[in-house]
Amino acid sequence: MTPDLDAIVTDIIAAMAQEDDRGTVASYIPELAKVDPAQFGIAIATADGRLISGGDADIGFSIQSVSKVFALTLALGKVGDQLWDRVGREPSGNAFNSITQLEHEQGIPRNPFINAGAIVVTDINLGGHQPRVAIGEMLRFIRYLAGEDTIAINEAVAASETATGFRNMALANYMRAFNNVRHPVELVLGSYFHQCAIEMSCRQLALAGRYLMLDGGHPGGGRVVSPRRARRINALMLTCGHYDASGDFAFRVGIPGKSGVGGGILAIVPGRASIAVWSPGLNTSGNSQLGTLALEELARRTGWSVFSPPEEGD
Amino acid sequence: MTPDLDAIVTDIIAAMAQEDDRGTVASYIPELAKVDPAQFGIAIATADGRLISGGDADIGFSIQSVSKVFALTLALGKVGDQLWDRVGREPSGNAFNSITQLEHEQGIPRNPFINAGAIVVTDINLGGHQPRVAIGEMLRFIRYLAGEDTIAINEAVAASETATGFRNMALANYMRAFNNVRHPVELVLGSYFHQCAIEMSCRQLALAGRYLMLDGGHPGGGRVVSPRRARRINALMLTCGHYDASGDFAFRVGIPGKSGVGGGILAIVPGRASIAVWSPGLNTSGNSQLGTLALEELARRTGWSVFSPPEEGD
Amino acid sequence: MTPDLDAIVTDIIAAMAQEDDRGTVASYIPELAKVDPAQFGIAIATADGRLISGGDADIGFSIQSVSKVFALTLALGKVGDQLWDRVGREPSGNAFNSITQLEHEQGIPRNPFINAGAIVVTDINLGGHQPRVAIGEMLRFIRYLAGEDTIAINEAVAASETATGFRNMALANYMRAFNNVRHPVELVLGSYFHQCAIEMSCRQLALAGRYLMLDGGHPGGGRVVSPRRARRINALMLTCGHYDASGDFAFRVGIPGKSGVGGGILAIVPGRASIAVWSPGLNTSGNSQLGTLALEELARRTGWSVFSPPEEGD
Amino acid sequence: MTPDLDAIVTDIIAAMAQEDDRGTVASYIPELAKVDPAQFGIAIATADGRLISGGDADIGFSIQSVSKVFALTLALGKVGDQLWDRVGREPSGNAFNSITQLEHEQGIPRNPFINAGAIVVTDINLGGHQPRVAIGEMLRFIRYLAGEDTIAINEAVAASETATGFRNMALANYMRAFNNVRHPVELVLGSYFHQCAIEMSCRQLALAGRYLMLDGGHPGGGRVVSPRRARRINALMLTCGHYDASGDFAFRVGIPGKSGVGGGILAIVPGRASIAVWSPGLNTSGNSQLGTLALEELARRTGWSVFSPPEEGD
Repeated sequence: MTPDLDAIVTDIIAAMAQEDDRGTVASYIPELAKVDPAQFGIAIATADGRLISGGDADIGFSIQSVSKVFALTLALGKVGDQLWDRVGREPSGNAFNSITQLEHEQGIPRNPFINAGAIVVTDINLGGHQPRVAIGEMLRFIRYLAGEDTIAINEAVAASETATGFRNMALANYMRAFNNVRHPVELVLGSYFHQCAIEMSCRQLALAGRYLMLDGGHPGGGRVVSPRRARRINALMLTCGHYDASGDFAFRVGIPGKSGVGGGILAIVPGRASIAVWSPGLNTSGNSQLGTLALEELARRTGWSVFSPPEEGD
Repeated sequence: MTPDLDAIVTDIIAAMAQEDDRGTVASYIPELAKVDPAQFGIAIATADGRLISGGDADIGFSIQSVSKVFALTLALGKVGDQLWDRVGREPSGNAFNSITQLEHEQGIPRNPFINAGAIVVTDINLGGHQPRVAIGEMLRFIRYLAGEDTIAINEAVAASETATGFRNMALANYMRAFNNVRHPVELVLGSYFHQCAIEMSCRQLALAGRYLMLDGGHPGGGRVVSPRRARRINALMLTCGHYDASGDFAFRVGIPGKSGVGGGILAIVPGRASIAVWSPGLNTSGNSQLGTLALEELARRTGWSVFSPPEEGD
Repeated sequence: MTPDLDAIVTDIIAAMAQEDDRGTVASYIPELAKVDPAQFGIAIATADGRLISGGDADIGFSIQSVSKVFALTLALGKVGDQLWDRVGREPSGNAFNSITQLEHEQGIPRNPFINAGAIVVTDINLGGHQPRVAIGEMLRFIRYLAGEDTIAINEAVAASETATGFRNMALANYMRAFNNVRHPVELVLGSYFHQCAIEMSCRQLALAGRYLMLDGGHPGGGRVVSPRRARRINALMLTCGHYDASGDFAFRVGIPGKSGVGGGILAIVPGRASIAVWSPGLNTSGNSQLGTLALEELARRTGWSVFSPPEEGD
Repeated sequence: MTPDLDAIVTDIIAAMAQEDDRGTVASYIPELAKVDPAQFGIAIATADGRLISGGDADIGFSIQSVSKVFALTLALGKVGDQLWDRVGREPSGNAFNSITQLEHEQGIPRNPFINAGAIVVTDINLGGHQPRVAIGEMLRFIRYLAGEDTIAINEAVAASETATGFRNMALANYMRAFNNVRHPVELVLGSYFHQCAIEMSCRQLALAGRYLMLDGGHPGGGRVVSPRRARRINALMLTCGHYDASGDFAFRVGIPGKSGVGGGILAIVPGRASIAVWSPGLNTSGNSQLGTLALEELARRTGWSVFSPPEEGD
């Protein structure tokens, strides 16, 4: 039985509007701190080609760490599994911006979805070019995935991150000492901060994530990545996609997801749906408070879970 | 298309026989160190009621940490979600017997599948009774799940662990200092060591795991746990089932699994299969070297993965 | 110019009586929690044979970790510098009962004045004997140092520690896993808890410490340890004698000292004085609040400091 | 009895020439890696105004972290004890360039003699000025202490550190994120690297350290710091002057000292001597191998130790 997604989305929008505890908007990036916390959007791109959305699904937000999924996909395309010589694939057990683990493990970040790992991925994507080249390539890739040419970078956010990103500078310099960042730190972070500052709506983000629902295929035909690679990216999203709350998200929601401090989450139900939710207030682990709640409710209502028998949700 | 499991199992048995690097048999439990490393078994219980097995699938081995799955299931039945006040559900990022994390987090273990967490679960299962009562209950539960009355404890292994389990004694005492172990440490560890020393064959273990493939239902009818609880246990197995190699197992194999230092692994493909593999040699993370390899090959051949579209493997 | 110690002691007694913030009596050992916090004592044994004391200098208190100095002295007499194969001599940077460092350093405690290190020292002192033999030897040694035959163990305190010393049991078991504790844990801790429960007055403690002021000589003639060993014990007291506040004590007071959670501190001014202070309330690092303050004032008034020119205080 | 320093120095020079294990020259600063390891120098400035020296006592070397003593002295002169709001005074238990501790303690370095702490001290000394102003002030201060106008910076070394100092950049950026570095990181490190690149001979360094032997007084008259401050700097040198080998140095040598990766060590015997030794090869903790050995031998021969009775060495 196919769930009635329109009704479910309507109910979720209503339920979220009633929530008192909306979390706290990220304050360490000044430009993000200005965002109105009373917003909530959701969009679901289904495998059969529909797009169901609601709330503030057309308002652009800073995708921040959700970009790590697209950056990883690009980097794997460039260097393949050699990437794993420079980045691990284990959950970190630490906060998104922790530096402790790097010291214990000789400059090799635990996975590509914490900041340190994403900085190495960005270093790989730079490939000897100037940041604007790498950023241009990333933007084109995301536009191609979403089928939307208007997706762009919010330069004010990028500038805001550059001015205050001291912990990221610390991480990058630390890994440079181990030669695991190989371009000048300023170039790598310039590229990294711009990639984080890409602005998308829930609708655009759900569309961009469809290749991970489609086992690597592009909805318009052709392949973005092989089925094997798509599954592996989904696996990483499940085990590492929510920093030190990844286990809890897998437990409560049961589907792969990647969150960003802008309040967005991209979640994938293989074979069924690519989902984007957004609400700017974050919980203590740095993941969207209402976004997590909405995905938990959506999973409950639809029966979607990678941990249930396939028959269940069909 | 249903995969030809008989052919696949035959091929895997043959391939494993060719492997040179069979890992190292656990030496810190003297009784386990005596096991012949040249053994390999596999058994697959399918949702449609078949049992395919091969190699040393009928030889009993010490299930060790695989017992943590059954112990958790029992404890959740006793105290429900209150259990999570005393145990986390995040991957640990540390070795199975690490004590460091306990100090940083006030005696609350990171998840129920590392030793510290399983000791708290055992403390819950004791429930004021003597160890023999709790162990009896656990044995009856596993026999009921597997439908086999002959499953028993290897007392020599239990005695061996008791005599040398200093790190587990350290963990238990440390958590007792935080009142997160509430019975006398000797009783809790007595129960814990016996539970680890339960001996099962691959065939029995695959049978015992069927409820997790069946969304919580017992193949003989009735429910072992609710669908929601079954999914959550599967989620924990995926994120935390292989200690500090959990992320790698999810990445390479893509299905929930729980390993033990006896060389056994229980792996669950929701809606399709409950799989047990066994080979005594361990890799550096303490998981069966050939067992992991065999599951990776099985997943590749069958297309089974919780991260691929359901259509794929059908 | 010799400082007028009688006047200084009188002033310090008066000043301490005015202090509002007297710290907090240790509560994790129930028997210690019963001690009246409004007590303060001080005793100074000088190199020229005088004993100046004041306040509650004749009331017995639990010497607790101050016993680590005497235990180390005994153990060095038994095994010499081989002791340093099993215990480090670096400040720990961690709390007195931390276990984290042990995991990183393979069961070798950082120094003999944190609990883990003192447990190894106790293991050495056991030397294959029963705890009562080792405790008897320790008591005789302290009585000989102090020249007082009445010094004894408070059995109620020893029993109280035994019943609640879970963190120490964790430490001992953890080191036993690395074979750095070699007797059964119960025997080692039995000995350790009794040694901690030795009861002495400030007067007795100041007398017992004289050998460290006298470069290893016994005031009654003969040697307790060589000059070299006496200096080294003083060095360890300075760098490691106050847990994670050792640096601060060296900075503020400037003389070697060893504190205990019973509220006592033994402090040594080489060539000049052996000082004992006692007040049961502890600061957040577990050292006597008024004891530390009194020693700081005493050092200021006398000019005593190992970091000033010798002429200064003469 | 005054020790015959001339004979002792002659013997030490001879003994050091026989040593096979001369440690390893620091390689992470390329310019330092070029230094000939077969050099050894020693100079002793005594309280009665003599200067005994031997070996390569007149060859300039990079003082590196020994500069932290002079920088701290300057900074305390500027902001007094407010400095301790931003830097701790506990031994770190970690390597000189560790970043882990900063994460656990919110950007407050453990003490002023590890790199992180010295970077904060440099930030204080900058005081809103350009690096060249702060560096000029530092040079003038050291020249005044040593009574030598020729002491200068080795610009090649400073440039070499700037080009490769990624871990220091990581530390500085990390603390900037906690607002414990307040000037732009480039300016702070520019100043820090130049200060480390000051070049002095043993003779000059021994002369510059005299104020710490003289309880804060300048040998030419007047005060550099108060007696209380001089003692406290000596105390910090003893507890924190040799990174994670500080306890061992205090144990073996028994006098305050500060080492640098250029192979120099400044050591102070209060009231008696200011000693500089230099040999470029380092032990595993980053302290001069022969320098440490020479100081241990010097202490043994002279009886100098802050932990022995004053009579002993007179």
